Order: sequence, then C-alpha cells, then structure tokens
Amino acid sequence: MSHGVGSDVADILRDAPKNWGRWGPDDEVGALNFLGPQEVLSAISSVRSGKQFTLQVPMADPKGDPVWPGRRAAERYQIIDEGHWCCGKAPHLPGGQHYADDAMSAYLQGSTQYDALGHVWYDGQLYNGYDARSTIGGLQKASVQAIGERGIVGRGILLDVARLRGKAWLDKGETFTHEDLLAAAAAQGCEIRKHDILLIRTGFIESFFALGADEFYADFIEPGLTYSPELVDWFHAMEIPNLLTDTMANEVTIDPVTGAMLPLHGALMRNLGVTFTELCDLSRLAADCVGDGQWDFLYVAAPLKIVNGTGAPVNPVVIK
Amino acid sequence: MSHGVGSDVADILRDAPKNWGRWGPDDEVGALNFLGPQEVLSAISSVRSGKQFTLQVPMADPKGDPVWPGRRAAERYQIIDEGHWCCGKAPHLPGGQHYADDAMSAYLQGSTQYDALGHVWYDGQLYNGYDARSTIGGLQKASVQAIGERGIVGRGILLDVARLRGKAWLDKGETFTHEDLLAAAAAQGCEIRKHDILLIRTGFIESFFALGADEFYADFIEPGLTYSPELVDWFHAMEIPNLLTDTMANEVTIDPVTGAMLPLHGALMRNLGVTFTELCDLSRLAADCVGDGQWDFLYVAAPLKIVNGTGAPVNPVVIK
Amino acid sequence: MSHGVGSDVADILRDAPKNWGRWGPDDEVGALNFLGPQEVLSAISSVRSGKQFTLQVPMADPKGDPVWPGRRAAERYQIIDEGHWCCGKAPHLPGGQHYADDAMSAYLQGSTQYDALGHVWYDGQLYNGYDARSTIGGLQKASVQAIGERGIVGRGILLDVARLRGKAWLDKGETFTHEDLLAAAAAQGCEIRKHDILLIRTGFIESFFALGADEFYADFIEPGLTYSPELVDWFHAMEIPNLLTDTMANEVTIDPVTGAMLPLHGALMRNLGVTFTELCDLSRLAADCVGDGQWDFLYVAAPLKIVNGTGAPVNPVVIK
Amino acid sequence: MSHGVGSDVADILRDAPKNWGRWGPDDEVGALNFLGPQEVLSAISSVRSGKQFTLQVPMADPKGDPVWPGRRAAERYQIIDEGHWCCGKAPHLPGGQHYADDAMSAYLQGSTQYDALGHVWYDGQLYNGYDARSTIGGLQKASVQAIGERGIVGRGILLDVARLRGKAWLDKGETFTHEDLLAAAAAQGCEIRKHDILLIRTGFIESFFALGADEFYADFIEPGLTYSPELVDWFHAMEIPNLLTDTMANEVTIDPVTGAMLPLHGALMRNLGVTFTELCDLSRLAADCVGDGQWDFLYVAAPLKIVNGTGAPVNPVVIK
Repeated sequence: MSHGVGSDVADILRDAPKNWGRWGPDDEVGALNFLGPQEVLSAISSVRSGKQFTLQVPMADPKGDPVWPGRRAAERYQIIDEGHWCCGKAPHLPGGQHYADDAMSAYLQGSTQYDALGHVWYDGQLYNGYDARSTIGGLQKASVQAIGERGIVGRGILLDVARLRGKAWLDKGETFTHEDLLAAAAAQGCEIRKHDILLIRTGFIESFFALGADEFYADFIEPGLTYSPELVDWFHAMEIPNLLTDTMANEVTIDPVTGAMLPLHGALMRNLGVTFTELCDLSRLAADCVGDGQWDFLYVAAPLKIVNGTGAPVNPVVIK
Repeated sequence: MSHGVGSDVADILRDAPKNWGRWGPDDEVGALNFLGPQEVLSAISSVRSGKQFTLQVPMADPKGDPVWPGRRAAERYQIIDEGHWCCGKAPHLPGGQHYADDAMSAYLQGSTQYDALGHVWYDGQLYNGYDARSTIGGLQKASVQAIGERGIVGRGILLDVARLRGKAWLDKGETFTHEDLLAAAAAQGCEIRKHDILLIRTGFIESFFALGADEFYADFIEPGLTYSPELVDWFHAMEIPNLLTDTMANEVTIDPVTGAMLPLHGALMRNLGVTFTELCDLSRLAADCVGDGQWDFLYVAAPLKIVNGTGAPVNPVVIK
Repeated sequence: MSHGVGSDVADILRDAPKNWGRWGPDDEVGALNFLGPQEVLSAISSVRSGKQFTLQVPMADPKGDPVWPGRRAAERYQIIDEGHWCCGKAPHLPGGQHYADDAMSAYLQGSTQYDALGHVWYDGQLYNGYDARSTIGGLQKASVQAIGERGIVGRGILLDVARLRGKAWLDKGETFTHEDLLAAAAAQGCEIRKHDILLIRTGFIESFFALGADEFYADFIEPGLTYSPELVDWFHAMEIPNLLTDTMANEVTIDPVTGAMLPLHGALMRNLGVTFTELCDLSRLAADCVGDGQWDFLYVAAPLKIVNGTGAPVNPVVIK
Repeated sequence: MSHGVGSDVADILRDAPKNWGRWGPDDEVGALNFLGPQEVLSAISSVRSGKQFTLQVPMADPKGDPVWPGRRAAERYQIIDEGHWCCGKAPHLPGGQHYADDAMSAYLQGSTQYDALGHVWYDGQLYNGYDARSTIGGLQKASVQAIGERGIVGRGILLDVARLRGKAWLDKGETFTHEDLLAAAAAQGCEIRKHDILLIRTGFIESFFALGADEFYADFIEPGLTYSPELVDWFHAMEIPNLLTDTMANEVTIDPVTGAMLPLHGALMRNLGVTFTELCDLSRLAADCVGDGQWDFLYVAAPLKIVNGTGAPVNPVVIK
C-alpha cells in the first residue's frame, strides 16, 4: 500500500471503524463504557498478593520533568514555609501552629496524564461527532472531566515490548504492532482478553532519567505502536478501553509508512473512543512482574476533573 | 479541663501520643504504613457489586471552585484549539490533524487534595521529628511525593454525620467527636475496624454548590471533628491511616474549647502521621450507601507526585 | 434620538466618526500618531521645576490589588531567597554571593495598564478595520506590542473632576462629560490643547484603599465619562491621542442613556484609535498641582511589549 | 594582588566603598538619589529633535525570549477572544461589544528589567545594611517597588563598546573596563558627566535574534564590564545612579581574574546602591546616534511597582 508524502489522516482513515453513537449522542468517555461492573469484578479477582504500584512520573522536579517539545515542565512555587516564621513575616494562627503552602503552574498535557477524547481530531469533528469548534476556549464536549467523573477500574495487563526485544529501552523511532503485543503476551505466558487495559512498556521514559535531557531530546522521535488497518481492527475487535504507555504520545511520533504524525490518535482516540494514558513509569511494575510471573492486575485511575480540560494529570494505581 | 484563651497547640498536646520513629527515622508516610498487603486483600474482599465512584470536586470551574479563604481557585488557560485553525494561526502537523492543549495555575491545597505530612507543624518539628526548616522553599522531608509514590489502598468506611443528625449539611462551626463516628456507624449498621480509612460526610461542601459562594464564605467557619485527648487516643488505638472529609480542613476551624486553630492537624497529622484528604464530594457515594446498605468498600487513591509539595490534587476512587 | 433597552453599540455608533485608514492600512497605534516630534518638544517645554511622579498602582500586593470583577489580582511567587541559604538548599555561586528571584502570574488587564487598540470591538472589526478573528489566540493586529514599541511622549494635562465636584471621589455610577472636562480646566486655570494627553481624576481608585474591597466592590459600577455624539466629536476634533483615568474602564460602567456597557471603548478606542490607560493613581500628582498651580506637564509612558497582548502593565511617569 | 580560585566576593570587596547610610537608614533606592530636580532639568535640556525610542526587548514571544539559564521566558495565555463568540461561548455584554483578555506567567528577572537593590548580596547584608533574612518570602526592604515609586529621570549617555571594537557584538566572555567606556565616549565625541545614566551597548542580545537560541546559549558566558577596584572607584566618584546594558547581567558572567561570579553586583549594586537595568535592546538607538551624532538624551523609565519584588519588567524611553 502506498501513501504519498503528506497523506492526510482523513484520507488514511476514510474507511476506518468508528464507535460514534454506540453509547448515545452525549457520550464523552467512549470505550471506557466497555468497563462495566462485570469487568470490575473480574479485575478484582486478579488481585492475589496485595502488592500495589503507582505509575506517575514525579512532577515539578526542580531538575526538570520529561515533556513533549513545545510544552513546558510543571513549576511549583512556595507560598509560605518555616522561613516566614524565622524572619517574623508569618501570620499568627490561634494556637501557634506553622504551615507550608504552595502553588503550581503546569501544562495539562505535560506530565503523566489522561488525554480527553477531544484532545486530537480531524475533519472538523471530535470523538462522537462533536463539532471541532466546541473546543474553542476549552472542551465543551469530550473533556477530561467526563473521564475524571467516571474513573477507570478494570483488568490491566502489562506488555513489555522492550523486554521482548531484549533492550533496556526501544530505539528512537522504533515501531511495533499489535502482533508484537500478542508476542509479548505469549512470551510472558499471559493472555490479552477483551476489555483489557493495555499497559505497554517501551522503556523510553526511563532513558530520560538514565541519559539526561540533552540526549533524550536530540533528534526527538519517540518509539511506539505504528498504524495499520489491521491494528485498528484488532483494537476495535478486542474492545480495548484504555491504552497506556511510557511514552508521551502512545505511538511512534511520525508514522514511517504514511508520513503522518500520530495517526493512531485519530484512529483509536477520535474514532474508537479509546482513552490514552501517557508518560507512565512502568519500570518497577515490570520488574515485579518478571519476579512473580503475574502480568495482569487490578488497574485503578482517575484523572483530575479539570472542567473543559483537554487532559489532566493522573497517578494510576496497580494492585496485584 | 480548662484551656485559657490562645492556648498553644504545643501546650495542649504536650502529653499526646506520637508515632515518630515507629517506622524508622526516614519514614514520610506515617500511618499509611498500617496498610499492608493484608489490609489490601481485606479491602478487596469488600467489593461486591462492581460499582465505582470518584470523589474529587471538579477543578478549575469557570464558575469558581470552593477554596479556603486566602488561597485561590485553580485557573485553566487554553493554549490552542480549533479557533487557531479557523483563523489560520495553527501549525500544520504532517497528516493534518488538529488538537487542543491547555495549562493550569493552581494552589496545591486548593482542590480535593492530600496534605503532605509536613503540611502543618509546631515546636519546630514536623512529623517524625524532621526540622521545620526543611520546609523552606519546598518540603525536603514528608512531602506529598512520598504519599504519591506509595498510593493508598485499603478498606474505606463512610460515616455520614449529616445523616446521623438529620440534616442536609452540618451548621457552620458545628462539631462532633469520635463518639459520633461510632454512633454513625451503629446507625448505619456497620463497624469501624482497625486500619480503616475513614470517609466522614458533613454535607458542608454540598452547601457551597447549593447556596452559592457568598453565603458559604460569610462568617466562614467549617464544621468538623473537634479535639479531645480521648479522640486522639481513639485514632491512635484504631491505627487510622487516613482521614477524609468533605470539608477543607477535616476538623472544625477553631476548636471551641481551646480556641486553637486546627489542633487535630497537630495531634493527628504531625504526631500520629495520619494522612488528611480534604474537600471531597461524598454526596453520590452517600446516596448509594443508603440505597444498598453497604457502607464499606475498597478505597484507592494516589495524589500527584509533586516533588517537595505540601499537598497535591487527587481524585479518589471507591469500588463497592 | 431614543435608544431602547439593550441598544447595540453598533447601532448607537452607526454614524460615528472613525480614523480607520488615516495612518495607513497597517497602523496599529491610532491617535498616538498625533504625537510627533513637535508635540514632544512642546511637552518638553512644559517642564519647569524638575519634579517627577509615577502613576502606577502597586501590583501584586499581598493585601490585594483593585481589579475588574472577573479578573484576578497579580500574584508574586518567591523562587529563591536567603531562606534557601539558611537551610542549606541554595546553590553555591563562585564567589559566594546570595540572591533572590521571583515570578509573577498576572492578568494583563489587571493592573495599571494600556489597552491594546484591539482590546474591544463590535461588528466583527477592530480598530482600523482588522478582522475580529485576528484576535483568536492573541492579537495579530493592533496588539499592545505596537504601543510598547512606540512609547507615549506628549503634553499631559490633569483634569480633576472630583475636585471640580468638591468630593474626595465621585459616587458609584456618577457620570460626567467633555463639558465637565472643560469646566475642570477652566476652574484650574489651564487650557486643553489639541493633541493633549488627558489625565482625568475621579478619585475612585483611592476609595478602594480608603474604604476597603468589600465596600468598593459592593454593587460595583464605576463613575466616568458617559457617551454622547458631542463628546465623541470633541475627542475627534481635539485629536486626543491618549485617555487616562483612575478607574478601571475609563468610562461609566453602564451608559445610563443607552444601557450599553462601555460604549466609549467602541467610539474612542475602536473607531478613533484613542489609546486607553486605566487604573492610575493620580492622588499625589493632583495634590501637587493644587500646590503649585501647574496642571500640565511632560507625560512619558511605555507599556510592556507583550507580543500579541491585549494590554500590558505600565508605570507612567509625569515630569513637571 | 592575587586572588586564589574561588575567592569570596566578601574578601575581594573587603575595602570597597559603600554608600550605606548616605541617604538615611531607610533608603531603598540608593544612587538614584543623585538624580534630583537639577539633573532632571539638565536632562530635559538635552532634548533637541523630539525623537523617541523604547528599549525593552519584546516579551512573551511565542518564538521564545532571551532569558538567563535557569529562569524561563514569559508565557502569555489567552483568556477570551473572538473565537468565544464564533462558537457561542462568550458572555453577552449589554450593547453587544466583544473583547479580548489575556494573562501572563513570567519571571520578574526574565525580561528587560530593573533589579531591586536587594536582588544580590553577600555577608548577610543587602544594600544599606538590611538583614539578608528580610528577603525571605519577598523583599521587605530595598524591593523594586521603591524604584518603581520613584521612577528614573535623568541624562542618559549611550556608550557603544561593540562599535568601539569594530564588532557587531562582543565575543562570549569578552571584557571591558571603565577605561573603555571613556574611550567609547571619546570616540563618539561626547563626555560622561557626573550623575549620568550609562547605557552600554555590547550588541550581545542582538546575537540572540541573529544567531538563534542554540548558538546563543552554547557555552553560555556573557561579555561585559569586569571588576577592578579602580572601576568601582570610578563609579563611586562619578556618582553613577543607573547602569544599563544589553546583556542579562550587566557584567561579565565570571570575572576572569578572581573567578567570582558577578562581583559587580556586590560592588556596585549592594555597596554603592547603583541600580541595574538589564537586557535592553540598544540597536535602534545606537544606529540613530551614529546618524545624528547625538549620544546623550533624556532617559525616562519606571519599573512596575511589584510589591516585595526582586525585580520588575520595564520599557525604558529615550527622548533625543
């Protein structure tokens, strides 16, 4: 199949499947609707030892957070602390206690985060057919608030593609497909089920901390899943509610076949309503799964309910 | 027992129990250490129907969020949206997709949030004896990052004090004690166990949305738990890891007996290492518990891992 | 002519004069073009004693700045200070000096400020006929940067309407016209000349500091100039380049005749290209003018060159 | 005299002159006190043709502002614009006008700016002997507000060191002394007088825009004045009130003789109370001075009155 230079995502995905309308004209959470009480109870049954993990990358680190070029790392500002009492500037509270307060300035897509389903679109329509102009000044429809109101509880499965390839982390721009996900599951001795939340490890975010920002950002192109109609069909058939990775965009930055940027955002997020969770740290979870051979678990997450937000920070929890 | 006007919290709590050193000299998460794998598995077993709830109050609402006087509600700023394409200002991405991005400015104690154990102190020492000067410019010890790294998974129990008192919400400044918590549990037909995460409903935050900001802030004084040595001993004996309410400070603003401001922050947070989760919306959960008579559940939460943070936003999840 | 309730500014100003095109199709500074080298030299000649005054209201005051309802006062955040050295957290600079740094979050219309000529519009067009859609995501045309690049130097004249009316400050909603400006000049023994920069004192911002925020914002309606075709013609004929007051909007909030909000923004700013300077403190200057009887002076100001900005903070200087 | 590696500024300046107490124990503006009415009138007399220039570098440019490493360029956020009316989200104002508003997040030392006299210090004392602990949480003394309240009006003189050296801009780390300033004045045919405001052009900030950020920041070290006791004595004897350059720090980053970082901040700002104005664009002014041979002028500036600020943005004006 040949795509010319600059193929439009709209052309590439002309015949791609959509879940628009599947959960009614007002739906804003898409494939998360696959996660009902049965999926919750099934996920609960995957808990065996009571171990727990959190997946957020630390935020507002004075040494700098990893962040997509063009965005900015979060900044934390101290408002009050013991220094104010040291120099006589602090208020006196009845009873004489002291306290510390702070504030933050952050890009909502600049840390471990859930994308709203309305974060990326083409052809003038968001997920579920909402008018793209509804994004002006804030997402009126399909904002991250809807995802935050619902929360995500289900059976998660870790698929360690870096381990499958025998690498600490994938190379820049290295791609893989759903076939690789199946191969990873097979190698791990586990099975991807319908309605599973997929946690895909590339190791890439670990390279930020291991190599430093200069090397990480040089000729920046992330590794990741790459588009094919078959991959989209597989996500559609498997009714995957939520795709989570340790990269910033959950897919290879530029699709090497079509030349398009991030076409899976169109195919999976906009068309199928798959929620994207990005920039997670899966290193400790992966090491534990190698240790005990248990690659599935209860996954619980809820992004902040940012009203009209295009995305929101989150600290997902895994319970094994 | 009589306390003079302006009693110091340091005096009031001179003989109060502490958990300092109990989990080693470097501990930063305090009573969360009571939540081990056994507590996780026990909490898992309280899940029956697969229902889920999220507890965060929406954030950065253009109409205004509830926030402690002196702090400021979160603000969201649009960075890019369909408007940029409407007027020809947007970048062209290969493949032609559009997207929306935004940023946020927020007080870290200005929404549903976990307090760091180092958020409030007296006598020059934080929880676990850390020097108060370690708070300068950011919490070097006992910051919210430690809580975010760990996450909180355990058995939660909702105690509906507003319902116990037959009110939609408690009055301004209305107090209650651990005896009332026990009475609420009894009225609900459930039992508070050791290591339970307590979710206490006063209905107060609901009054913000029902009455409006003007009435909510007029003569501002929150209702809540009030200090007594017996209450502190009860929390100590019950080894409560986490106290969560639908008020901004988790206790009555000014203790009516001692005149001290927020003495339970000293007694429970600083001394016993009990984590505080504030400003939650418990209305839907409470209505459901009335309906099915199940007041205990799996509670899962993880605040953002803000490096050196005094607190962090969170969207807790309850699974029944 | 009678205007019904809700009269559109577009209707009210249907036959009003415009300066569009007068300084070419690319002009972005409007009536400031009236200020050429001759006006500068003339203004210079009004300096007699070498006294100087600054007109900005202090900004980011922890006690709160006056700000238009719906905007927010500026906030300053400390980044580093001596406290970081006190507790061993500061960097070591070669040579061992210490320093303090800080940051600010501010609304660009939330302090003493110049409005860009593209700040307010109607009928889909800004000053000089620019398309209103050029404002999306930032002012592409007629932004405050153009005013900042040019700077404002000219002969200013203080017109003390509060003094004319024998009041410390005008009442809420109290109006006045260009006839009152002429009367003030006459009472002061001075003359308004063509191309003069008008500094109009109502005393209103002084009431914020004297009465407190609660009283200032209660039933908020500012006093100020009120619309009439004659007033617009007078500004047009006098070729006034810059209108400056000690209120936040430079005109009465709601025009009592037409019911329109801020119609002079349309008539003077959008149509004639008169720059607006708002929220100045004229109290010390006024007291001095009473003392020495000199009401005209050299006025020098330059707002920050905020790229694409709708307005920018400024600290104007008066030299007598 | 020999300085070892890492010489302390406190040692280097042990016998250096100070102006502490010269203008009383409460003074916060230092050498600006040299600018009295006589200096204002003298400066006024240097105006000949009525030309005007503004010196600020544009701020919050989406393409990035020049900023000292470790600080961050200003960001502007759109709050409302025509897009909100295009999609039906805007408020309806009586009369139907539309408007645009925006906000800004900025480092107060991250653009063309005045340093507060308390911005840099050593030995536990700021300018005038104020305790360094008074900087905690904001400058209680010698903040930029004091400079903003006063404003700066005086005779400025441009000294074009880049032109003297026959370069578009000085090399990285290239140094010069007060002797070079005298040589530049001589080459230009003008004379530095007591109480003159010095505007020193190195061309360095122009290299940011000509070469791009990557080359500008590579091996970052600014050119500039370099410390010597003679230079300090010269500034002291000449009673220079204000030093302004087109670099970010007004002096060479690391003094090549002593190895100290920015020792003139100690010698001139802290000890003599000379105000520093940094990061100005002098290119257009310099070109004009070459053209008309007039290198002196009226200089008028007033930084924003940021309460407790360590510095503040400014857009200085020059009138010739």
